[in-house]
Amino acid sequence: MKINYRYKKNKSPYQKLIPVKPDSVRLKDKFWAPRINLLSERTLLTQYQQLEITGRIANFERVVKDLSEPFQGLYFNESDVYKWLEAVAYSLAQFPNEDLKKLLGEVVNKIIAIQQPDGYLNAYFVGENESLRWTDLKDKHELYCAGHLIEAAIAIHRSTGDDKLLTAAIRYADLIVETFGASRKFPNGTPGHPEIELALVALFRYTGEKQYLAQALRFIDNRGHGHLGYGEYYQDHKPVRALQRMHGHAVRAVYLNAGIADVYLETGDKSLLNALEVMWHHMTNYQVYVTGGIGSRDDGEAFGADYELPDAEAYAETCAAIGKIFWDWRMLLITGDAKYANDLELTLFNAMLAGIGLDGVSYFYSNPLASDCMHRRQPWFAISCCPPNVARVLASLSGYLYTTSEEGLWVNLYAESTCDANLPDGTKVQFELSSSYPWDGHIHLKITDSAAFALFLRIPGWCHPDASLSINGEVWKDRLVPQSYVKVDRHWQFGDVVELNLPMPVQPMIANPNIKHLANRVALTSGPIVFCLEHIDEFMPEADNFVLSPKSSFNFKYAGKELGHVKMIEVQGTRRINQPLTKNAALYEPIHPDQISEESTSMLAIPYFAWGNRDYGDMQVWIRQS
Amino acid sequence: MKINYRYKKNKSPYQKLIPVKPDSVRLKDKFWAPRINLLSERTLLTQYQQLEITGRIANFERVVKDLSEPFQGLYFNESDVYKWLEAVAYSLAQFPNEDLKKLLGEVVNKIIAIQQPDGYLNAYFVGENESLRWTDLKDKHELYCAGHLIEAAIAIHRSTGDDKLLTAAIRYADLIVETFGASRKFPNGTPGHPEIELALVALFRYTGEKQYLAQALRFIDNRGHGHLGYGEYYQDHKPVRALQRMHGHAVRAVYLNAGIADVYLETGDKSLLNALEVMWHHMTNYQVYVTGGIGSRDDGEAFGADYELPDAEAYAETCAAIGKIFWDWRMLLITGDAKYANDLELTLFNAMLAGIGLDGVSYFYSNPLASDCMHRRQPWFAISCCPPNVARVLASLSGYLYTTSEEGLWVNLYAESTCDANLPDGTKVQFELSSSYPWDGHIHLKITDSAAFALFLRIPGWCHPDASLSINGEVWKDRLVPQSYVKVDRHWQFGDVVELNLPMPVQPMIANPNIKHLANRVALTSGPIVFCLEHIDEFMPEADNFVLSPKSSFNFKYAGKELGHVKMIEVQGTRRINQPLTKNAALYEPIHPDQISEESTSMLAIPYFAWGNRDYGDMQVWIRQS
Repeated sequence: MKINYRYKKNKSPYQKLIPVKPDSVRLKDKFWAPRINLLSERTLLTQYQQLEITGRIANFERVVKDLSEPFQGLYFNESDVYKWLEAVAYSLAQFPNEDLKKLLGEVVNKIIAIQQPDGYLNAYFVGENESLRWTDLKDKHELYCAGHLIEAAIAIHRSTGDDKLLTAAIRYADLIVETFGASRKFPNGTPGHPEIELALVALFRYTGEKQYLAQALRFIDNRGHGHLGYGEYYQDHKPVRALQRMHGHAVRAVYLNAGIADVYLETGDKSLLNALEVMWHHMTNYQVYVTGGIGSRDDGEAFGADYELPDAEAYAETCAAIGKIFWDWRMLLITGDAKYANDLELTLFNAMLAGIGLDGVSYFYSNPLASDCMHRRQPWFAISCCPPNVARVLASLSGYLYTTSEEGLWVNLYAESTCDANLPDGTKVQFELSSSYPWDGHIHLKITDSAAFALFLRIPGWCHPDASLSINGEVWKDRLVPQSYVKVDRHWQFGDVVELNLPMPVQPMIANPNIKHLANRVALTSGPIVFCLEHIDEFMPEADNFVLSPKSSFNFKYAGKELGHVKMIEVQGTRRINQPLTKNAALYEPIHPDQISEESTSMLAIPYFAWGNRDYGDMQVWIRQS
Repeated sequence: MKINYRYKKNKSPYQKLIPVKPDSVRLKDKFWAPRINLLSERTLLTQYQQLEITGRIANFERVVKDLSEPFQGLYFNESDVYKWLEAVAYSLAQFPNEDLKKLLGEVVNKIIAIQQPDGYLNAYFVGENESLRWTDLKDKHELYCAGHLIEAAIAIHRSTGDDKLLTAAIRYADLIVETFGASRKFPNGTPGHPEIELALVALFRYTGEKQYLAQALRFIDNRGHGHLGYGEYYQDHKPVRALQRMHGHAVRAVYLNAGIADVYLETGDKSLLNALEVMWHHMTNYQVYVTGGIGSRDDGEAFGADYELPDAEAYAETCAAIGKIFWDWRMLLITGDAKYANDLELTLFNAMLAGIGLDGVSYFYSNPLASDCMHRRQPWFAISCCPPNVARVLASLSGYLYTTSEEGLWVNLYAESTCDANLPDGTKVQFELSSSYPWDGHIHLKITDSAAFALFLRIPGWCHPDASLSINGEVWKDRLVPQSYVKVDRHWQFGDVVELNLPMPVQPMIANPNIKHLANRVALTSGPIVFCLEHIDEFMPEADNFVLSPKSSFNFKYAGKELGHVKMIEVQGTRRINQPLTKNAALYEPIHPDQISEESTSMLAIPYFAWGNRDYGDMQVWIRQS
């Protein structure tokens, strides 16, 4: 079968901002580029080893070789293989790697080998489980796996031109439409774990086949009618258009919303967009951590009540942060509103990036904001959705930097890079951007080809109002509105230089008084980075015995290699030992003034994403303040 | 039927301390006596009106008059009537009140009129519900109501000599033994809400009939075998001897433990005592509020996880505090260990006493340790277990002050009073105690009849080590061990004076660091009283914007009549407005040093039990400390 990718459209009809092609951007920065390089050099190979050790590859092989061999692990294990493939595809487009290329080819062959004559493709629902196909959409993740297969197939075709997996994925997608379409076998089919929705829209965009879009919409509209038992956990308690806040399992909720946003981008159905905006607003004002993490509740990996944002007990799954990034990104594409880029950046640098160790081979699944050193990075998990998910986000990161619109080019995230993109009208845009972002907010952008277009530069929400912009050495604006895009429209000449200054002083943050346990506490930020105290030196105060002086002065320092040269904040305060109690002591104890011992000291706050990479000790994002 | 109260024993075989007869003590103090007087003058009459208005009395009348009238309220409503009767009985023994006496007689007549020929007595399981008798021991509180009936009947007989209700209660108890005894109809019968256990032991003590004790033990041993579905909520997940911590519904749990303690007092079964000691120790170290309140979790009115002690969301039901007092009291009687008296006193003065307003006619059901003024006293509740429960504790309070043992007389609680008691060997003990307790720790005890005996004076756990004791003006000991009974054994002469000095400075308390939200906070105490800030004056800082200076000096002041002349603590600190956020604002906001406004101020902390009696405002037990 030869696929006719006749549509291949880049722009959806209700889209304000259009992603540039991945090969239009070349990252050259010292923050992301080395991380993406490390993916290629280390992360993706070790992840493959884990996929192999844990039987996730063997699960495909047994279907062909010997079905009497036991299926290994959980029924949705193959989704990790698909996410890994997707990450490898993105990585290969940037860093050629023969080992990875070979592995990708082998794995693809193993996958397509298990496709059934009718197009069905799943490593669990075969053999004696074949009769269970489509019988437990609620909990067995069958359509979830299909969605990740489709995403991987598109990524591989885009990156390598190889259409083997895409051909298989399309056959499978056709079977899904055949099975779940209106007036078909299971018209009420409702995926228990969203993912297929956004994948089907992606396949629609890639092939032009409208049936995939129609099926995505049907899956979305089937929710909220009790097909999943009216469970909030499954976002089935209300029709999606009636949702007003985030409920239930956090990853499911944000994947669903990303899928809804994709359907909106193609259909322009305002009632969908309205529900998304209401939910996003509620989440941002009641349900998100200062790190951009979401899904505070361990029980059900779920969104909690308003202001239910515990620190040490925070769940804040890495995958939930990733799903939020997907959703934020789509909201940005729809609206061009800088608030979405702002939130995306916050979650990316903090809640998500904490999910992978500086070594590139250790991970957090949940991301508490305080720890008494019991929370440790792991090389893999029994349910290991997070590691390959982080990999595919990092590997595709360059795609988030720039977007275009009819008017011009939009800079969403700042990282040293070159850009060589086309606007929708064909105008060529070429520039080089230099910066030490996120450690420093000086942005130097040099036009490398003359053209007339508007440049939209994002002014982050954290930005001090004296952010300024110069063109060719002359001040163009000395005040810029935080959380906006500043537009500079002109006929650019080769060599024109735009300089943006986004000051990044230490900015202490306080929390809404409804988060009672954060009274008397501040979180330190600088630019998009949230910092934390980590107690790894016995001569330092434990993280929660350090009390910041209210008018403390701050100094930036840079860490050595062992912490990836991150920026740190030296903070003055006191070591407060007003607690004769050890943690094993009585509930309450009298305290006498002469028992309060205070000594002046200083500590180094490190970026939150970098915690848990040295010795393990207490960690605290929200620092006590006297 | 004439009952032979042939046993009437005061002392159980495994009892170290023996309660004195209620009429041996006469309270004359300014703290408790006016409260108990107010019961007689106001509280019990208004509670009767509520019982009447809400159909709790009519539920008895309909059984005799017209069963087609609907039963009003919940199926356990009659338990409130029984608790009210018990309180009235105790009150009449101290304050003659013709209105109450008449009401008591009328209500007793209405109750006994519904007793069925077989002895059954319950206002709900009659008429069309008769077939439901004993069919839902788990949730319908049938045996719980029977227990309260028995307790009321004993109290009335003791106080007034009238045995009408007691005769009915004994007939009902006999039916219960008949129904639930070994090899009877329901040998596995397990009460869903404990109460019958302690009541049956009381009836055993009062009548000498061993079958009641045997039945109490059977009910206790039936637990933990799944008869209530292995529910932790019902303390059915383990046999009671295997319990190691407090689980489930708090009132159920402490009522059960009081019943277990009663059975131990009669049987000496060490495995029961051991379980009680393990549970008590765990509760005290992990599950109790600084006020002595318990049952922190709103969901299920239940004990939470270790250190799960939220403030504003605290449940801490008044009835749970009362049940804890019952349990503490029995542990004290068993062991003579001052730690139990200490805890009883703490819970009595704080967690329990907060449950009734200074007006004697308004109540709290749950008792949070912080409030944003949404928590208000009510005149009654749909489930109104707490108001009559507080009444019966207050009305019987004089019985907690003194106990005896073979060696002598024990002073457990300090309150101005006279005591005229007999030791087990017949020795007469007479004295007058003067004090302004709990506002002041000077205790003046004058012997008013010569006799040789040991006087055991409780040295509270909160007591500063320089507590001292003088006899006839001479220092007898200038250091006393906190949380102990100091023993003074001598031949006392008429007019001997014992002076005990228990200093009550302001004592700030800190919490175990495992209670994360209490870092940087202190609770102020003085003697047994826990204080709180209440924001009722718009010119004062809101309770949680007041920051106590670490070495603040404290001054005592006394309130006027509107706050019942309570002692207050004037505290110095600052009004910290470092929060530009209102509660409706964003989750997180930057804070700049110039936004931190601090002004020196002072506030008056009032006893926790007295909060919510003036205008309603913010309240905070745990005060921020800089």
